[in-house]
Amino acid sequence: MEVSNKQVIYRDYITGFPKETDLVLNTSTISLKVPEESNGVLVKNLYLSCDPYMRILMRKVPDNNLFTCYIPGSPITGFGVARVLDSRHPNFKEGDLVWGTTAWEEYSLITTPETLIKIEHTDVPLSYYTGILSMPGMTAYAGFYELCSPRKGECVFISSAFGTVGQIVGQFAKLTGCYVVGSAGSKEKVDLLKNKLGFDAAFNYKEEHDLDAALKRYCPDGIDIYFDNVGGKMLDAVLLNMRPRGRIAACGMVSQYNLEEPEGVKNLIQVIYKQIRIEGLVVFNYYHLYPKFLDMILPHIREGKIVYFEEINEGLESGPAALIKLLSGRNVGKQVVVVARE
Amino acid sequence: MEVSNKQVIYRDYITGFPKETDLVLNTSTISLKVPEESNGVLVKNLYLSCDPYMRILMRKVPDNNLFTCYIPGSPITGFGVARVLDSRHPNFKEGDLVWGTTAWEEYSLITTPETLIKIEHTDVPLSYYTGILSMPGMTAYAGFYELCSPRKGECVFISSAFGTVGQIVGQFAKLTGCYVVGSAGSKEKVDLLKNKLGFDAAFNYKEEHDLDAALKRYCPDGIDIYFDNVGGKMLDAVLLNMRPRGRIAACGMVSQYNLEEPEGVKNLIQVIYKQIRIEGLVVFNYYHLYPKFLDMILPHIREGKIVYFEEINEGLESGPAALIKLLSGRNVGKQVVVVARE
Repeated sequence: MEVSNKQVIYRDYITGFPKETDLVLNTSTISLKVPEESNGVLVKNLYLSCDPYMRILMRKVPDNNLFTCYIPGSPITGFGVARVLDSRHPNFKEGDLVWGTTAWEEYSLITTPETLIKIEHTDVPLSYYTGILSMPGMTAYAGFYELCSPRKGECVFISSAFGTVGQIVGQFAKLTGCYVVGSAGSKEKVDLLKNKLGFDAAFNYKEEHDLDAALKRYCPDGIDIYFDNVGGKMLDAVLLNMRPRGRIAACGMVSQYNLEEPEGVKNLIQVIYKQIRIEGLVVFNYYHLYPKFLDMILPHIREGKIVYFEEINEGLESGPAALIKLLSGRNVGKQVVVVARE
Repeated sequence: MEVSNKQVIYRDYITGFPKETDLVLNTSTISLKVPEESNGVLVKNLYLSCDPYMRILMRKVPDNNLFTCYIPGSPITGFGVARVLDSRHPNFKEGDLVWGTTAWEEYSLITTPETLIKIEHTDVPLSYYTGILSMPGMTAYAGFYELCSPRKGECVFISSAFGTVGQIVGQFAKLTGCYVVGSAGSKEKVDLLKNKLGFDAAFNYKEEHDLDAALKRYCPDGIDIYFDNVGGKMLDAVLLNMRPRGRIAACGMVSQYNLEEPEGVKNLIQVIYKQIRIEGLVVFNYYHLYPKFLDMILPHIREGKIVYFEEINEGLESGPAALIKLLSGRNVGKQVVVVARE
C-alpha cells in the first residue's frame, strides 16, 4: 500500500546566497514496507535539522570527500529524528526511535541504516536529537575536548558562538574553567551569550570594522583556543591574536560557503611563529565516543547546568524557509523543522 | 687590548628581494676579554650559517615574536660555530667549541651564553654544526618525528627538499620506510634528490604551471605528510592532495618572505573535510631533545647512511654574496660562510 509523501526538493545547483525558491515542495508516494531485497529501514520523519554544512552540498562542483552533494530534482538530505515503521535490518525494529541521516520528506526508506543511532533516552525533548544530542553536540564535544586540549584558565574564543555547536562549546569551556569569548551576528545573540550561556564576553562581528582590534579588546592577553565555525577574515584576525602553542579546531567555514572562490587566509605564518596547531574535525571519526558523550552531557542537561536554545518551525512546508533562515544566520537557536509530533 | 673586527652590517630595512648591496662590510675593533660586569662569553666565529628565516629579520615591521629584527647599522646575526676565547659564564671556558646565535663578524661578545650549546663530537666536520647538527637538523628531527607522526608506507612530500632541512627530512622519511617526494627549484637539485638522497620522486616546481596536477602525478594516492618549507601556492595545491588525517608540519614559508602582503591560502576548507592537522614548529621548544637527536643521527652520518651536501663560501667578505645566494635559492646544499678555520 502506498501513501502520500510530501517532500522538499532541491531545484538546481545554487551559486551565491540560497533562496527559499531554490527548494520546492512536492508530493510523491511511498510504500511503508521495506522492499524484500533491501536490508533497510522505513521511517516516519519527526524532526529535521538545519545545519550550515548543507550549503556545501548545494555546490555544482563538489569540493568535499565526506558527503554526496544534492541532486537536482531529488529531496535534500540532512540529519533528523525518526520513528522506525518497518525494518529488515537486525539492529532496528518497528517502533524504534533513531537519529541520523534522512531525507526531507514525511517518510523515508533508509538503505544504509548502519549510519542510524538508536535513541535510548526520551526524558529529554526528542528534538534535542537534531542538535545537542546528535551530530552538532558530538562536534562540540570532540572538537573541544579531543582537538583543543583545554586547560583551566585558558582563553577560548568561539565564532558563530550562538550556533548549535558554539552554544555547547562555550558551556563546555565554562565547565572547564576557561575565559570564554564569542562572536555572533546580532545584538540579540550577543546578549543571550552573555546573559544566558555564561560567556565572559561577546561581540557582534558585523559591528566591528577591524576584527583584529576587536579581538585585542575582548581577548587582551591573546587566545589559547579558537573554535572556528566561520573561517575567512575572522580566522585571519584570530591568527594575529593567538598565544604561543595555541590550538584551533577547524569545524566550519560558514563565511566561505556562498562564495565561488574562497577568500585567501593571509596570516598563516603566525602558525609557525607561535607553534599553533590547526586541526580539522570530521565528527564521524569520533562517533565511538557517543555513549561517553551522552553519559557526560545528559546529567548536565537534566540539572540545567547546560542550557540549549532551539528555534522550531512547524510543518515540512516551513522547511525551505527554516533552512534559508539558518543559512542566512537569522535564526536564534538551533533551527529545527517539525515534520510530525506523531 | 683591542683587535680589529671585520663585520657584515645591515644597511637598512629591505622590501622585495634582498641584494648584496643591502649588506656592507665594515671594520670595527673589539676587546678579546669579557667585561667584568658581564657574565657573557667572547668568541672567535669560525663558521656562519645562512638560513631562510634571516629574511624575516630584515622586515621594517616585525611580524614575529621569536627573533629580534636586524637593526640598521649593526651586524646581522645568525647561527654559527665559534671558539670561546674568554668566558665569565660557568657553563663555558676558554677553548670550548660552541654553536648558537652569534653575529656576522670575526669576534663576538655573546651576552646570553645560555643560548649556546657546547660541541662535544668533533670527529665530524665542524661546519656540520651550522646545519645538520644544529638548528636546521633539530628542525628536521622535531618537525618530522614529533609533529608528523610518520608511519611506514606513508607518502611524504617535502617542499624546498634540497634545502638544509629538506635534505634531512627526506632521509629520515626514507629510514622510516615512507614514499618520499620532493620539490626543488632546479634540475640539478632534482637530480641530487633522486640520485644522491634516495627520494622516490622529485620535480622542479618552476617547470610546473599547475602544481595541483604535478602533485597528482607524483603523489597519485595523495599525501599523508607534508613538510612545508615554502607556504603560499604550494601549500594551497598540497591541501587539495592531502589524504584523510594527513599532517602538515609548517616549518617555513619562504615563498612569502619577500612579499609585503602575503598571498592568501584558499583551500583551507580541506583541513576540515579531511581532518588535516597543521602544526607550526618552533624548534627551540624541542631543544631538550638535542642529546637524543645526536645519539640518533651521529651514527647515521659516520656510517654514511645519511648524506649531507654543503656549499662553502670562504671568508667573511664573501658573506653577503653567500646569504643572497641562499635567499634566492641559487645555492646547492647547506650554505656556509667560513670566517676562520683557526
